[in-house]
Amino acid sequence: MQLNAPLDMHLHLRDGEMLEKIAKSSAETFSGAIIMPNLVPPVSTKEEVVAYRQRIEKAIGKETFTPYMTLFFKPSYDKAFLESIKDEITAIKLYPAGITTNSEGGVSGFDVEELRPALEAMSELNIPLCVHGETNGFVMDREAEFASIYERLATAFPKLKIIMEHITTKSSVDLLDKFENLYASITIHHLLITLDDVAGGMLKPHLFCKPIAKRPEDRDALLKVALAAHPKVMFGSDSAPHPKHAKEACGCAAGVFTSPIALQLLAELFDNNNASVENLQAFVSGNAQNIYDISVPNKTVFLEKTPFKVPSDYNGVVPMYADEEIAYSITKVENN
Amino acid sequence: MQLNAPLDMHLHLRDGEMLEKIAKSSAETFSGAIIMPNLVPPVSTKEEVVAYRQRIEKAIGKETFTPYMTLFFKPSYDKAFLESIKDEITAIKLYPAGITTNSEGGVSGFDVEELRPALEAMSELNIPLCVHGETNGFVMDREAEFASIYERLATAFPKLKIIMEHITTKSSVDLLDKFENLYASITIHHLLITLDDVAGGMLKPHLFCKPIAKRPEDRDALLKVALAAHPKVMFGSDSAPHPKHAKEACGCAAGVFTSPIALQLLAELFDNNNASVENLQAFVSGNAQNIYDISVPNKTVFLEKTPFKVPSDYNGVVPMYADEEIAYSITKVENN
Repeated sequence: MQLNAPLDMHLHLRDGEMLEKIAKSSAETFSGAIIMPNLVPPVSTKEEVVAYRQRIEKAIGKETFTPYMTLFFKPSYDKAFLESIKDEITAIKLYPAGITTNSEGGVSGFDVEELRPALEAMSELNIPLCVHGETNGFVMDREAEFASIYERLATAFPKLKIIMEHITTKSSVDLLDKFENLYASITIHHLLITLDDVAGGMLKPHLFCKPIAKRPEDRDALLKVALAAHPKVMFGSDSAPHPKHAKEACGCAAGVFTSPIALQLLAELFDNNNASVENLQAFVSGNAQNIYDISVPNKTVFLEKTPFKVPSDYNGVVPMYADEEIAYSITKVENN
Repeated sequence: MQLNAPLDMHLHLRDGEMLEKIAKSSAETFSGAIIMPNLVPPVSTKEEVVAYRQRIEKAIGKETFTPYMTLFFKPSYDKAFLESIKDEITAIKLYPAGITTNSEGGVSGFDVEELRPALEAMSELNIPLCVHGETNGFVMDREAEFASIYERLATAFPKLKIIMEHITTKSSVDLLDKFENLYASITIHHLLITLDDVAGGMLKPHLFCKPIAKRPEDRDALLKVALAAHPKVMFGSDSAPHPKHAKEACGCAAGVFTSPIALQLLAELFDNNNASVENLQAFVSGNAQNIYDISVPNKTVFLEKTPFKVPSDYNGVVPMYADEEIAYSITKVENN
C-alpha cells in the first residue's frame, strides 16, 4: 500500500524541548500538518506565528514537511490585522475558555454579534475557523451540547469555513450534511477506542484525551464517515504529547500521542473494515487539500502488512499502544 | 454531632500486609462491617471464612468491631453446605464473572434454574444475597443493563433478601420501590462524585472505581434516597485499598479508599444538604440493622464541624481527598 502526501490536519507540536523531541515523528511520514497554537502564551501575533514556524522548521531539519500555521482566535481580531497576517497562517483556531490544555484565553460566550467583526473578516479573507467544540458541561455531553453553537455559527457566517475539530460524537457527524460550511477532522484514536478502553477495565492514562472517547454508537458514526471518505471529513491526529511523568501522575494530563504510528493504524483500520486504499488516500490527504485549498509537498509513504512493535516511548513520550503489536509497518518514505 | 454504632455494609479489608495496614482505619470508627470475600482465592469454604475472620480479628487488635463475614457465591452451594456455614456468615456475595477485582470465579449466566437450588436454600435459611450488579457491557451502561437481572432474581426468589451493592444509577434506585425484596448499599464517593470528577478535568486515578461514577442525574437519585434515609438503603463504603503504585500506574486498579474519612464526609454531606442527624444515623446504622437483622456492638463517634486535612496516605494507601481539607473531624470515639 502507498499513501501520497499524507496530511495531519490537527497536530500539537508543542515548543522547546518537547518540540525538538517529537517534531520529526510527524515530519518523517507526513507532508504537512495544521499546527495548533495553544502554547503558553498562545500564538496570537504575526511575530509569534513566524517565530514558532521557524522553531518548527529548525526542529524538523531536512525533512520535507509543511507546517500549516494557525493563530489562537481572539474576538478582538480586526480585518486590518487579519489581512496583515493572512499569508502566514492557514487557519485560526477557536478554543472555548478553559476547555483543554492551555486554552485559558479562549472564547467564553458565543455571542454572534461580539464575534461578527472577526468572523466576517475571516469569511471575506477566506481563512477557515477551526473549533474545539465542547461546552463546560458534563464530560460525556460537552460535544453534543456544543452542536447548537456550531449551528449558530454556521448559520450566522454562511461563507466561513468552520472545521469541527477532533469530533467524537454522532451528533457532530450529523451536522456535516446539515450545514454546507461545516467540516470535521477525526483522530485515529477516536476511530479505535471508546470510554470502555479508557476506563472500562483498568484505567488507562495514555488513552485519556479531550474530548474524551465516547460511546460505541458514537465511534460507529465516526467510522462510517471516515471509512467512506465523506468529502467533508479529514484526518487530524490531535497527537498531543506530554512527558511520561505528566501522563502517569495523580492528575494525568489529557492527550494521546499517535504521530509516529498514525498512518500504520489507519492502514490497519481501513484494511480491517474492507475500506479501499482510495478512501484512505482521500481521508488522509485529498479531502483536506480540497477543504483547505492548499498545495502540499510530495511524499510517498509505503506501508506493508507486517507486524510492528510500538516502542515503549519516543524520546520519553509514551505513544498509544506502547509495547503492543500493530499490523502495519512503514517500509519506505520517498520525498519526490 | 454523635453517631451510634456506625456500620459499613460493604468493605474490602484485603489480606496479608494490606489487611494489617488498613483494618484499624475501619475498626477505630465503625462498630462493624460486611467483609467482602474476593480474596485470591475467593473465600468459599467454612475453613476459609473462619481463618479470614481470625486474621481480621488479629489485625483489628483491641478495637470493638464485628467483621460480618461473607462467602463468595457459587451456584454449586447446596442446602447442607449452607446450613453448616450459616452461623459463620452474615451474607453471600455474588459477582458476575470477571467484572471487578478478583471476581474471575463468579457467575457468568444468570439462569434462574441453575441458581435455584442455592438461592432457594439461602431464602429458607434467611441468608441475604449481596450482588455486584454489572454486565460486561459499555462501562456507563453496565449497571442499568443489570436491572433486568435484578428483576429476574427478585421475582424468582421473592423471599430472598437481595442487596444491590454500591448502586450508582437512577435505574437501580428506581428498583427499590418496585420489588419488596431488593435493598441497596451506597458508597460515600458515589454520593459525592460523577464521571466529571474522574475524567472531566485531569484524569484522577484515586477516584477511579467500579462501578464507575456516573452522570449528575444518577448521583442526584442516589442522594435523594440516602439523605432521606430511605429504609431500604444503607451505607457501604466499598472502600477498596490498593498500594499507591497500583493506583498511579499505566493501568490503574479500580477502587477508592475511604474508610478513615467516610464518617466525616457523610457528616459534611448531610449537613451541606440540610439532612437531619437522625437520617444520617439511620443511613449509617439503623437501616442496616433492620435489613440484616443483626446485633451490633456499641460505639459512639463524636464529630465536630472542624476542618480536617486528609493525610496524603495511610500506611502507603492514598485515600480519597488526600491532602485536601474536609469540613468535619472525629473528636472522640467511645466504646461502651
